[in-house]
Amino acid sequence: MEKREQLYEGKAKKVFATDDPKYCIVSYKDSATAFNGLKKGEIHDKGMINNRVTNHLMRLLAAAGIPTHYVEELSPRETLVKKVDIIPLEVIVRNIAAGSLSKRLGIPEGTKLKRTVLEYSYKNDDLGDPMVNDYHILAMEYATEEELKTIAGYALRINELLSDYLRDLHIELIDFKLEFGKTAGGEIVLADEISPDTCRFWDSVTHKKLDKDRFRQDLGGVEDAYKEILRRLLGE
Amino acid sequence: MEKREQLYEGKAKKVFATDDPKYCIVSYKDSATAFNGLKKGEIHDKGMINNRVTNHLMRLLAAAGIPTHYVEELSPRETLVKKVDIIPLEVIVRNIAAGSLSKRLGIPEGTKLKRTVLEYSYKNDDLGDPMVNDYHILAMEYATEEELKTIAGYALRINELLSDYLRDLHIELIDFKLEFGKTAGGEIVLADEISPDTCRFWDSVTHKKLDKDRFRQDLGGVEDAYKEILRRLLGE
Repeated sequence: MEKREQLYEGKAKKVFATDDPKYCIVSYKDSATAFNGLKKGEIHDKGMINNRVTNHLMRLLAAAGIPTHYVEELSPRETLVKKVDIIPLEVIVRNIAAGSLSKRLGIPEGTKLKRTVLEYSYKNDDLGDPMVNDYHILAMEYATEEELKTIAGYALRINELLSDYLRDLHIELIDFKLEFGKTAGGEIVLADEISPDTCRFWDSVTHKKLDKDRFRQDLGGVEDAYKEILRRLLGE
Repeated sequence: MEKREQLYEGKAKKVFATDDPKYCIVSYKDSATAFNGLKKGEIHDKGMINNRVTNHLMRLLAAAGIPTHYVEELSPRETLVKKVDIIPLEVIVRNIAAGSLSKRLGIPEGTKLKRTVLEYSYKNDDLGDPMVNDYHILAMEYATEEELKTIAGYALRINELLSDYLRDLHIELIDFKLEFGKTAGGEIVLADEISPDTCRFWDSVTHKKLDKDRFRQDLGGVEDAYKEILRRLLGE
């Protein structure tokens, strides 16, 4: 597969066309942003770590029956994926209160939720990715009823699979963000990334944060946290 | 029924105990607030109008099979109601985009929604009544699954009943806010008020706003708009 023109540059990744319209190449950057782009920085080796962690978890989920956009890791920073139309929703899965949920509902960070919480945000930087519910999604046609049901089902199943897997590595999966896309054939597949940029990972014993909150909250040791996740997941 | 001590004073109403613990008396005030209490004022005769409009609509809904807290209008400003434990949710029903929905999702005010939208806010002034979805409600135990299903069903049915009724009076029901409570016997009933304070009413022909947006947006003619609603609904 030959790499062609850049199709898109986001905050953490670039996407390139290939000579086959059904595929594209994702290239992970070291740039880090937070608070809808207000805070900017670099995290050394983040692109490599997020690419490898994402692919590792995508393979694990695919083996358990979750369709994903993943095709093949091309290099430490680049991956071949199926080309999809991204469904304009961020799907947030929460097991333990943290971040915006803690603030909005006044729940101390670290409180175990009595049930898994799914939240959706409409992907729109200009509007600040506003939270939406099922009714908004259907009325605004961000997704169809069937697509939404599929997405919610996958998100809950992915949560079970990842939580179980990470627990054995002494990592607590606090919450995470997923994105889904539709292939040319109309199949809904997991897309985007699953990494310390998009998940909250806490050490199960010490509760130390091993994710982008170290960057957001200026906690120090950002690179070491990302490396620690790579080490626990891929043994390096 | 004898009026006893004041139990509660809200932004627009006071609630009094009676000599029977199963009932209380609601007394409507002329005070008006907006933007979570940041804007304050008085709307002459609002208390009387909202009391009478609410009771008129509660009777109409009760006749159509919706259980409500309404018992008897005691005076132009005071009504006997069943005592309930309020479920801490504002239930917002939207037919046409306006207000916070227009701003949050970037939809021009007046756009007809392709489906009726239900939204929930957790009733908590300190947190600014944050929007919540079904998952938050169940995880935080603001309501049980069965209660939530009942509430959503009533809200959609109330929307049909009120929209049909108001259409004949040349009033378009843009959106409105409901609250529900649980009686001592465990029944979920419609509570609070249904008035120009809690609904967006537009004249069907001129699209003139006949509700609290005239106060929120300093449009003038606030008292006249409230009186016009009273006149159309009760013929006075």
